[in-house]
Amino acid sequence: MPEHDDQEPEARGLSRRGLFGLGAGLLGAGLGAGATFAVGQAVSASAGGGTATAATVYPFYDDHQAGIVTPAQDRLHFASFDVADISRDDLVGLLQDWADAAALMTAGTPAGRYGAVNGPYDAPPDDTGEALGLPASGLTLTFGFGPSLFTSADGTDRFGLASQRPEALVDLPHFPADALVETLTGGDLCIQACSEDPQVAVHAIRNLSRIAFGRAALRWSQLGFGRTSSTSTAQQTPRNLFGFKDGTANIKAEDRTTVDAQVWAQPGDGPSWMDGGSYLVARKIRMTIETWDRTSLREQEAVIGRTKGEGAPYSGGTEFTAPDFSATGQGGKPLIAADSHVRLAHPDQNSGAQLLRRGYNFVDGNDDLGRLNAGLFFIAYQRDPRTQFIPIQENLAKNDAMNEYVRHVGSGIWAIPPGARTGSFPGASLFA
Amino acid sequence: MPEHDDQEPEARGLSRRGLFGLGAGLLGAGLGAGATFAVGQAVSASAGGGTATAATVYPFYDDHQAGIVTPAQDRLHFASFDVADISRDDLVGLLQDWADAAALMTAGTPAGRYGAVNGPYDAPPDDTGEALGLPASGLTLTFGFGPSLFTSADGTDRFGLASQRPEALVDLPHFPADALVETLTGGDLCIQACSEDPQVAVHAIRNLSRIAFGRAALRWSQLGFGRTSSTSTAQQTPRNLFGFKDGTANIKAEDRTTVDAQVWAQPGDGPSWMDGGSYLVARKIRMTIETWDRTSLREQEAVIGRTKGEGAPYSGGTEFTAPDFSATGQGGKPLIAADSHVRLAHPDQNSGAQLLRRGYNFVDGNDDLGRLNAGLFFIAYQRDPRTQFIPIQENLAKNDAMNEYVRHVGSGIWAIPPGARTGSFPGASLFA
Repeated sequence: MPEHDDQEPEARGLSRRGLFGLGAGLLGAGLGAGATFAVGQAVSASAGGGTATAATVYPFYDDHQAGIVTPAQDRLHFASFDVADISRDDLVGLLQDWADAAALMTAGTPAGRYGAVNGPYDAPPDDTGEALGLPASGLTLTFGFGPSLFTSADGTDRFGLASQRPEALVDLPHFPADALVETLTGGDLCIQACSEDPQVAVHAIRNLSRIAFGRAALRWSQLGFGRTSSTSTAQQTPRNLFGFKDGTANIKAEDRTTVDAQVWAQPGDGPSWMDGGSYLVARKIRMTIETWDRTSLREQEAVIGRTKGEGAPYSGGTEFTAPDFSATGQGGKPLIAADSHVRLAHPDQNSGAQLLRRGYNFVDGNDDLGRLNAGLFFIAYQRDPRTQFIPIQENLAKNDAMNEYVRHVGSGIWAIPPGARTGSFPGASLFA
Repeated sequence: MPEHDDQEPEARGLSRRGLFGLGAGLLGAGLGAGATFAVGQAVSASAGGGTATAATVYPFYDDHQAGIVTPAQDRLHFASFDVADISRDDLVGLLQDWADAAALMTAGTPAGRYGAVNGPYDAPPDDTGEALGLPASGLTLTFGFGPSLFTSADGTDRFGLASQRPEALVDLPHFPADALVETLTGGDLCIQACSEDPQVAVHAIRNLSRIAFGRAALRWSQLGFGRTSSTSTAQQTPRNLFGFKDGTANIKAEDRTTVDAQVWAQPGDGPSWMDGGSYLVARKIRMTIETWDRTSLREQEAVIGRTKGEGAPYSGGTEFTAPDFSATGQGGKPLIAADSHVRLAHPDQNSGAQLLRRGYNFVDGNDDLGRLNAGLFFIAYQRDPRTQFIPIQENLAKNDAMNEYVRHVGSGIWAIPPGARTGSFPGASLFA
């Protein structure tokens, strides 16, 4: 028979809720030395600027939340939550419990004090177990607050947060050709889980959903199987499901001037609790890939404005050559077409606005007509959506030749508070 | 401007269909020397009995199809197809085109002669491009024929194959508590794509679906993000979403006696075209993980009959210790409960019948109640479902304590013909 200590006095009567309610200080004290180190100090990433390895541990407690300028990991599980009819204190309790569990899981340890197998034997395990034995795999967990957390649909200020809502946390406008599905939009809270191992990302969202039981429930969620952006100069540019390299001109973590100017909310931008935070816009973009796949290579490249193989701009050069929008070819026509994606999305066409993209390819089975339900789960971080995502997307939604091949079906915006101090949770100063 | 040879005479007017119709011989002749080698002789797996690396190439042309005893890769894209109202010759043409493309893709090369970027510039590319630059990543593509290919629902023998239907290719019976969704069942043809890289598996199914356009359409499909079985003694046992090690007692490729007795159809078993083939049963099993996660560790372990951490049988020992079903504890009760999964699924309780399991964990978003739509995509290969999967599942469906936590929503059975001779396709002798 297995050796379970049914009687361990410390364990008895301690509920998951109670355990997490104790906070990270006691949590740390109750853990072995190795785990305490991992929670409190988090081992630095061994992969440097490149792609994480299985052993990579990104610090959870830091000035900024991890999962933004962190080198984009290969796999995603994104989740949006609705908060139940609970008190402000219970909301704080949930965020604290989430952060405590996130600190453990990002360090490669189980979600709770007793893990998946160490009892108490007559209670559900603290952790669901499917990541037992798996390393941290570069897991990051990034938490966000949606507009509806501050302003309920019925106009009530249920958590007393309305006065603290940043002006930059706007409700996204309706864009031309939006085909949003209500059940794939919005959410009071969001969690972005990224990892090199999908089982590690899924395990994290599952355990955080479980911890939220009775306090918040999954509204919608999305798995992404392959990154479509690099966020470090050390990473190779991946390909999206149009078969093109994506994110060649993305903001890279190494360019700290641009990161500060375009990604992090700065003092004075809005309420101080957001200083060092960012704003996340997610869009579930279904691609009509069967139509795309019947389009000529000429048309595909004209739509993008880049070559398919190398990813070079149509004005010439190689992948990282800057596009020359003034270059013309036969008959004086621009080499990079006026309605090409690369032109319309370029900072030069958008008052210098850029986005830090962190999107993922997805396939969710197929529809009744045998077409793959596939596309891009677009994720972008920015300092202010009013001057970045929104005008860029308005420009694209009106003019982009790519619109014939995409349909925006999901959407959300969240304020991403700065990182948590050790033992606290991201966004704690919003509630101070 | 990019250099595309708009005028290449060889390319002009050659449709994808026409290209594939030429067969592998000419295909090989038209390719560079490296690609010809890869198609004709396929580099052997470098990973031996263990898990594949990015560089691993499994031979497509072989005595048995790859993807059965091949060390289970980490990622899955499974697809079931319905054949359109086409002739027997067109069906043969489809299977030949699929095999030609499969030989190319499993070797790490694009799906067609001109790939994704080499023109003709005014035609759609031969390959969709998202796997450009990615290595073979241990890709295997395994093709199967469903009962409905032999016997149409309306009783017609549309392809003249009815007399060649193996008796072992039965219609699966209704099992107690089946909750099958019609749109997740059956299919005339199936393709199992397994790879270490999900983008490589998705690319393969997408390109094969595209090649089938007008001849067969996707009926249902499933992504699996993590393997739940080992098929080699060199692999570690992975965990399913119950958090338990799965497949400890699975058939391993190294046990050739058991593989021959339990996996491969032998001469005399049925029609000779199936000699060296196998039978695949797939079941989409949704787990009610929220309920499971609220169950005590004691109950979880009793349901499985093994410990959660080590995976040791409840009769004692370590993971690979054989369970002792006669061992009793307090009050003479069996240590491994009568309704435990490990007991009911064990060969000793099933007249020695075993299955080679190759299942995958899946998460397909969440339902309206905020519960993860998650579970196990069960895949089993066997010599004869009438004496293997069916009686085992009847036993489990009636008695297994695990039934409280699972719901079978998808199902299918396919005859998996033996491997293809170079330049031919799997199952060619069925049409001879």
